[in-house]
Amino acid sequence: MAICPVCNLKFGNNDFLALSEHFIGKAKDSDPLHVMWLNRNLTKTKADKKGLEPLFRNLYDLNGGGIKSWIINRFVSEYRGNNPHPFIIKMQDYNKYILQGYAVEHYFFLKQWVRSCSAIISKTDYNDVQTYEMENMVTEYFGNGKKPHIELLLDMAEGFGISRKKIMETKPLKNTENAINRWREIAQNNGWIEIMAAMHSLELIANSALRPYGARYDYFNLGAFDNNNVPETVKAFLMEGYHSDNAHSIEALNIIEKYSRDYNIENIQDAYLASTYVFYNYLEARIERGEMIENKQY
Amino acid sequence: MAICPVCNLKFGNNDFLALSEHFIGKAKDSDPLHVMWLNRNLTKTKADKKGLEPLFRNLYDLNGGGIKSWIINRFVSEYRGNNPHPFIIKMQDYNKYILQGYAVEHYFFLKQWVRSCSAIISKTDYNDVQTYEMENMVTEYFGNGKKPHIELLLDMAEGFGISRKKIMETKPLKNTENAINRWREIAQNNGWIEIMAAMHSLELIANSALRPYGARYDYFNLGAFDNNNVPETVKAFLMEGYHSDNAHSIEALNIIEKYSRDYNIENIQDAYLASTYVFYNYLEARIERGEMIENKQY
Repeated sequence: MAICPVCNLKFGNNDFLALSEHFIGKAKDSDPLHVMWLNRNLTKTKADKKGLEPLFRNLYDLNGGGIKSWIINRFVSEYRGNNPHPFIIKMQDYNKYILQGYAVEHYFFLKQWVRSCSAIISKTDYNDVQTYEMENMVTEYFGNGKKPHIELLLDMAEGFGISRKKIMETKPLKNTENAINRWREIAQNNGWIEIMAAMHSLELIANSALRPYGARYDYFNLGAFDNNNVPETVKAFLMEGYHSDNAHSIEALNIIEKYSRDYNIENIQDAYLASTYVFYNYLEARIERGEMIENKQY
Repeated sequence: MAICPVCNLKFGNNDFLALSEHFIGKAKDSDPLHVMWLNRNLTKTKADKKGLEPLFRNLYDLNGGGIKSWIINRFVSEYRGNNPHPFIIKMQDYNKYILQGYAVEHYFFLKQWVRSCSAIISKTDYNDVQTYEMENMVTEYFGNGKKPHIELLLDMAEGFGISRKKIMETKPLKNTENAINRWREIAQNNGWIEIMAAMHSLELIANSALRPYGARYDYFNLGAFDNNNVPETVKAFLMEGYHSDNAHSIEALNIIEKYSRDYNIENIQDAYLASTYVFYNYLEARIERGEMIENKQY
């Protein structure tokens, strides 16, 4: 299949012409979401369907490499390259409101995270896949002697004076809710390798070894956090994620690459594109929540 | 919904007349599976649809109790009451072939088990449900310092001279395969509380505290295993399951009971009936495999 990541609409295998027509139609109606996606991912120049089709073909082209390097290259280019995600920019300095926004919205992300990881286990017999997901769920959600990521997140929020109870009673922002709905749909309807590509690619956001792929920004400025104004709870949360996401994201991509020859690569790419589209918006929700907190609207 | 556990065919809510018609039709065609189910669960006397309908209504009746006691009463009556499952009878003495058959077929059961437990996690936000399933998966499948149930099973098989490799390369018997297919379908399509009822009710097979519900047989004769002919690997496997299934089954039923008021009870009952139907046949596959081994056909 080919996919429109904005609408989550699916087209025939390799049917990049129909996909281009869809985008041109949306652009004609001045739909800002489709235009923004085109600008960010394909071209900033106005194109007709004949001009767009080779760009989509090129987007899906593995360029002789595997799915692993395709995903890393795509992710770096959209999130951490010359035109990084605004959240990455914000994280280059210490801003307590951004971190508070992060804490609130990310709680809902992690509640969905465990549901996606367990869906993967439920859909495969491969022991290495199951064990990988099990360990990921333990680190992120359940804990095992050590505090899981979700507890460190709630500790960070509490350090800022936002109680666990308050977060749990919060309705996530629209972008977060939309993202969760799409991830839930992927977990329910897609195959294990597609869910894996959709979800674990997102852990590349914090991977610190992506310079060779063109990353120009770290997830956060390690230096900026080396000061006494930053609460210990913040450091504990960020450092833990920083270390575990390095291993998590690459190990998952290695597993996907290993099994990918037995699966439809285009469907794996679709799942990646569908997921990173809502992830982009979800990261904006972290900023939006931070601004609400700064303006005393939360 | 009402369900035919044999065909997994669904009828309208409370439509026990249509369900009765279905069974009468099958009985007229002398379908042995439907007749056997009727004999085991409703009546040994030939009945018309008018006679059968109140029996089905009665089967689904909670009798003023909750879903927990309904499940326990049903399970005990079908598996461990006056007319127990043949596998229970076999297990009252030590029979090494039966245990070898158990080891071979149960490997495939446990491979599906972890898929069902993780499907439950993937479909709920309730933390107590997720934690329960996580701990169950660790005990049964992944291990955590201690050997998981599946490793103890493979140890038992090895003790009998059946290698892990051989088991993993075995095609499960038809009854086992059919059961796994149905459990997989339930894990994919049903809600979390229905999957929970479908799967964890099965752990009642080894629960040692069911005398008050009318259980007349233990899962296995503890006394028979108190002898030197029984390999240590067999004792380790049986005793571990014996202890963990006690806690597992009742804790799961308590969780189901706690949340059941927010869900359609009849759908939970359907899931239970659909699952125990294939479980009955699956336990027969353990005997069948044991006989194959005894006759050197495996």
